[in-house]
Amino acid sequence: MSSTDELCSLRWDPVSKGVEVIDQTLLPHALSWCRLESLPAFCHAISAMQVRGAPLIGITAAFGLANALAEDASNENLARASAALMATRPTAVNLRWALDQITCAVKSLEPSQRALVALHRALSLREEDIVNCERIGANGLQLLRALNKDQLNIMTHCNAGWLATVQWGTALAPIYKAHASGIPVHVWVSETRPRNQGTNLTAWELHRAGVPCTIVTDNSCGQLMRQRQVDCVIVGSDRTAANGDVCNKVGTYLKALAARASDIPFYVALPESTIDWSCPSGEQIPIEEREESEVLSIGGLDAAGDYGEVKLAASHSTAFNPAFDVTPADLVAALITEHGNFDASEKGLQQLGAIASDA
Amino acid sequence: MSSTDELCSLRWDPVSKGVEVIDQTLLPHALSWCRLESLPAFCHAISAMQVRGAPLIGITAAFGLANALAEDASNENLARASAALMATRPTAVNLRWALDQITCAVKSLEPSQRALVALHRALSLREEDIVNCERIGANGLQLLRALNKDQLNIMTHCNAGWLATVQWGTALAPIYKAHASGIPVHVWVSETRPRNQGTNLTAWELHRAGVPCTIVTDNSCGQLMRQRQVDCVIVGSDRTAANGDVCNKVGTYLKALAARASDIPFYVALPESTIDWSCPSGEQIPIEEREESEVLSIGGLDAAGDYGEVKLAASHSTAFNPAFDVTPADLVAALITEHGNFDASEKGLQQLGAIASDA
Repeated sequence: MSSTDELCSLRWDPVSKGVEVIDQTLLPHALSWCRLESLPAFCHAISAMQVRGAPLIGITAAFGLANALAEDASNENLARASAALMATRPTAVNLRWALDQITCAVKSLEPSQRALVALHRALSLREEDIVNCERIGANGLQLLRALNKDQLNIMTHCNAGWLATVQWGTALAPIYKAHASGIPVHVWVSETRPRNQGTNLTAWELHRAGVPCTIVTDNSCGQLMRQRQVDCVIVGSDRTAANGDVCNKVGTYLKALAARASDIPFYVALPESTIDWSCPSGEQIPIEEREESEVLSIGGLDAAGDYGEVKLAASHSTAFNPAFDVTPADLVAALITEHGNFDASEKGLQQLGAIASDA
Repeated sequence: MSSTDELCSLRWDPVSKGVEVIDQTLLPHALSWCRLESLPAFCHAISAMQVRGAPLIGITAAFGLANALAEDASNENLARASAALMATRPTAVNLRWALDQITCAVKSLEPSQRALVALHRALSLREEDIVNCERIGANGLQLLRALNKDQLNIMTHCNAGWLATVQWGTALAPIYKAHASGIPVHVWVSETRPRNQGTNLTAWELHRAGVPCTIVTDNSCGQLMRQRQVDCVIVGSDRTAANGDVCNKVGTYLKALAARASDIPFYVALPESTIDWSCPSGEQIPIEEREESEVLSIGGLDAAGDYGEVKLAASHSTAFNPAFDVTPADLVAALITEHGNFDASEKGLQQLGAIASDA
């Protein structure tokens, strides 16, 4: 990661005191920064997936709550703004975590003090996220080195890179660390239907960072593993249950099954903030169902280079579109976190919790 | 199947003595019949996937060879036309089988007799295919009845329906039989990237036959099975090895793994002609690699209702596009064939072979 400005998804301008995010719905065809200046703008950025990825959603929501408090720091507005932000994406546990961080920091303060404290807390969450992701990268690099390969072919799913966090990413952080340390690394990017975050985001951000990659259909990932063209799989997590079950972008589970069938390590990289300690197992995690239009239509550049949507299915067709799936802990070789690498199990998470509370 | 004319992919006009096929590249947006009148037209229809599906490819190639012999029935042209047709799709074993059927029928004949005999053999292959598919449907229906469900949710992949054969289909034949016998049946159609044969063909032909279905992304199939929303999976086979390993559209293997993990029966429906007795296991089956453009771009209807392609990926992106994968026999609950239902094993295939040679 040569430049923090170039490989960053959310920036804070201390002069104008404004938050800018990359509008990820326009990638990979256009790079456009959006300035978020009101609660509806922050909510829209999250619900319309201009920003996405559990950690980045959390950081964006924290700045959104701070922004709302700068306009009206009453208890009523604190509750109202927090509820509005919470409603944007039901699955992301970081969203609640980040909003709780801001709320806890300000609720006992006089309203006049709240806006500045909230902003400082949001800024420190941003810095912590960068530090945590870099640690995830360093911890994951140990696992990659232990594979003892002269060159690495790593498969990932969806986008858990610096576009999903602020910098570095979670699943991609160990890859960036390996690349930076001179290990020849190539990434199999699974396109990740229906929203194609692999094609749109992961391939784009890896290219921007100079890491070689190849896009493959989600369907071909099993065959690639059977043919030993994959040394390991690393994915992110939207929500991690207390027993190590992982809820992540739909299709993750199929890769975990294929990795197990071919004895290929399947790693999940996540910050502690995605762990839902109140959730005993993946069965309790609600699965967000999104619009069928995401399956029945798709956007891209037409022959003239203009962005447009095309209808893929016949007009009589209907679709069902669950956005996430649950990967059982026993398919996960290790959880890579900012506190170290742990078994995906209740015991492993308890060890993580003990280290985290000491930190 | 109420009308054989409506639910048929290849028709022979005895008056004009011509072959017409549905141009499947235009589905689901337009229904257009193409008249094939020359060897290049037959070759193009197969290589450009106007016709696809192992059985239909074989029948089309048989008519193509008969057509070539009507123009020039010399040994040289027989060899040349057969080689040209064989080169159109390397994976489909039916292609070689169908060409061998025609060649064997004519090679000992005087050239003047060859064209008519070849045509009659092609016509009888077409009729045999219809009969075989209906038998596959009846045999598969026994397995569906044995599931003892008041209503059935069946998952399929790619297209192995009447668009892949002449009528009935292979994987979809038991579904049509169940529907016709009054069992409430609903089909989960996995879209089947990159060419979306599920969305384009299977959803279209099921709708035309009045069978309820819902399109899902390939990625969501594991989650649907974990949630017990699938009673069984039925897919087709492009080539079946002598040990029961199945080579089928890429993504089949992932569904087989997910079905096994959730104890859901995974059936493969195939005519005997897809069995490659010379191939001891799936490892020997070459996997066709297709153009990366199939992954990086996609076609659909724009806002004006015109068909067009859109570019999905950034211009710097590259893709790898294997078209098939191999599902190991031990993941297959049964092979559904025109000769009955068999274990997916060397022993099961030997039983099938014994019954077939008696038939």
